[in-house]
Amino acid sequence: MLFTVGRAFSIEAKQQKANSKAKFDAARAGQYILALCMNSEPHVAVVGATGAVGVEMIKTLEKHNFPVGKLTLLASARSVGKKLKFRGEEIPVQELTKSAFEGIDIALFSAGGSISKEFAPVAAQAGSVVIDNSSAFRMDNQVPLVIPEINGGDVKWHKGIIANPNCTTAVTLMALYPLHQAFSVKRIFAASYQAVSGTGAKAIEELKRQVEQIVKGHSVTKEVYPHQIAFNVLPHVDSFLQDGYTKEEMKMQNEGRKIMHHPTFRASVTCVRVPVYRAHSVAVNAEFEKPVTVESARAVLERAPGLRVIDEPAKNAYPLPLYQAEQADCAVGRLRRDCALDNGLAFWVSGDQLLKGAALNAVQIAEELLKSNSGVQDTEPARGIPSVAAGR
Amino acid sequence: MLFTVGRAFSIEAKQQKANSKAKFDAARAGQYILALCMNSEPHVAVVGATGAVGVEMIKTLEKHNFPVGKLTLLASARSVGKKLKFRGEEIPVQELTKSAFEGIDIALFSAGGSISKEFAPVAAQAGSVVIDNSSAFRMDNQVPLVIPEINGGDVKWHKGIIANPNCTTAVTLMALYPLHQAFSVKRIFAASYQAVSGTGAKAIEELKRQVEQIVKGHSVTKEVYPHQIAFNVLPHVDSFLQDGYTKEEMKMQNEGRKIMHHPTFRASVTCVRVPVYRAHSVAVNAEFEKPVTVESARAVLERAPGLRVIDEPAKNAYPLPLYQAEQADCAVGRLRRDCALDNGLAFWVSGDQLLKGAALNAVQIAEELLKSNSGVQDTEPARGIPSVAAGR
Repeated sequence: MLFTVGRAFSIEAKQQKANSKAKFDAARAGQYILALCMNSEPHVAVVGATGAVGVEMIKTLEKHNFPVGKLTLLASARSVGKKLKFRGEEIPVQELTKSAFEGIDIALFSAGGSISKEFAPVAAQAGSVVIDNSSAFRMDNQVPLVIPEINGGDVKWHKGIIANPNCTTAVTLMALYPLHQAFSVKRIFAASYQAVSGTGAKAIEELKRQVEQIVKGHSVTKEVYPHQIAFNVLPHVDSFLQDGYTKEEMKMQNEGRKIMHHPTFRASVTCVRVPVYRAHSVAVNAEFEKPVTVESARAVLERAPGLRVIDEPAKNAYPLPLYQAEQADCAVGRLRRDCALDNGLAFWVSGDQLLKGAALNAVQIAEELLKSNSGVQDTEPARGIPSVAAGR
Repeated sequence: MLFTVGRAFSIEAKQQKANSKAKFDAARAGQYILALCMNSEPHVAVVGATGAVGVEMIKTLEKHNFPVGKLTLLASARSVGKKLKFRGEEIPVQELTKSAFEGIDIALFSAGGSISKEFAPVAAQAGSVVIDNSSAFRMDNQVPLVIPEINGGDVKWHKGIIANPNCTTAVTLMALYPLHQAFSVKRIFAASYQAVSGTGAKAIEELKRQVEQIVKGHSVTKEVYPHQIAFNVLPHVDSFLQDGYTKEEMKMQNEGRKIMHHPTFRASVTCVRVPVYRAHSVAVNAEFEKPVTVESARAVLERAPGLRVIDEPAKNAYPLPLYQAEQADCAVGRLRRDCALDNGLAFWVSGDQLLKGAALNAVQIAEELLKSNSGVQDTEPARGIPSVAAGR
């Protein structure tokens, strides 16, 4: 059972509080932040269990041997009765209701922003830590936005909700952040090639259906996207803002600033949906403060966690979404000194957005929570707890 | 019958020379450049007539009512015997040989760089004006590289060969050049989404075949691309250079400089093949010398020749390759003030690369030749003839 002070003050939490070796850093945080006390075999819920990401969350919990004490699968009423396999056991899907979170330690949410807005605070109130895959809370100053390889320490200041980043942002930052550490990134220009599974299971069906309709010479029907996606590309992901960018495009700058703790980072992005089933790719031109060479960049990227360097053009070796699908690691390649920037590097990154951009990152956050908890109980040195008031 | 002095000095040409109102500008050109004298109903040859671009060249000549006196179709020996329709007539394909150009006024080449290198000088020597779609002569100082809407006047200094630009470059410059005229472009960052027809007819077959193999559950075979193109994207167009860019990627900067007469233009591009049959798209971030707003950019683009502005995000209206296929005009949209550049504009341009990027542009160059010729005979004011020695 987990608790955080300031919210979710259940009786169990109060009882456990007395036993926890809580650390208090009021001077830095400006308010009380208590370290975590997590059940070592937590009761985990997956909210949106039947969706494209939900299914991957269940698979990833199993694959990572996450110490799940109990797994509860939650979804809308129309999915109730379905069963999904976890560790060889068939687990029935239950209806998502406001009373569903009693006794749940960690709730992995991936059922869209409006479900998160409605149910995540309820879950936190009931004592769960919510790891939310939607964009609902990502830019909330009270909610850490975490990629464990980059800012895992930020899980410590959560107040019941931790946000999972946008998928395109996550895939890009897996390569960009190590370069930023070495060369200090100023800004990037990027264009994405986003798979239909980023939209969800219905979009996978839509691409399949349209391709079959075309192969059979039938007319093409549209249900998910405003235009045919088969044999087409759509420069339209998420909704449009007043300034002409889409919300998706601005996530790179906004979430990138928060995750990298880099408030002046600039990113101009064009997000494009392509007829690929799984794994997003991004073409990036990055400008740095410090001089960068292909060799120095490669050395940095080869050491980066969660990232493979695939960059042997002479052998036609570069990251490809088809081969990145179902891979935990992201891949970077096409490294070159940018010919239009002075301290610039151009590169191409590709990664399974259902994994690193969603399910895998969420499970890694859960692992970070457990680790953070055991760190308090054991002697692991505490990581810096950044100020909540620092304008994340 | 056409002639140019300094090459291709056939007897017919010599005879016609006496009748032509040739203009001579030795001071500017540093060598003799003679205005054109073109048969008003020229004998046209299409070299590579059975290829993806060749077929479009024939269609475009017909669609544009180009005053073809006679049409000769040339291809490799294995295509001899095929017949292609032009103005309701079946025209047999003849073998491309070195003696095939006798009496031909304009030879539209689209049979690959090595064929152009071998046969274009032969055709020019025989008195033809070659309009070459390959990259063989584009960066040759002695060869104009022309997009008629941008630098149509450059056809005047040809010496028997005029180059057609790279397809991705052509589509991009259709939107970039009018913006450059208004705001002075410094550099661009771009990522392309290139259709398989850019590779040729065999690549169209490859995508079709792979999609059918996948729909039928068969294993996928590869003949054209090094990796599966169906449901994948390949960050690899043309061959790799030592610096990590591909040749295709550097064409934007190199050809852009020559076409726009802008020797300091910088372009960092990532070229990506996508599973689209026809029409290339490019996401562009452009930096200008002068301040630019969306409104001022839109006003410029709405007046630009050969370009449509499709930019109503609220109605899901933006350029899409599926709808640009077989359209003569390119389309630009997704206009926005670039959030990572100070005088910057981000935009998305899409155009049928078999038309504006190849066949249409070639026929427009031929039209420019005729116009240029009639301008000499009539009273059309001569355009400036740029110096051949100016390092294009």
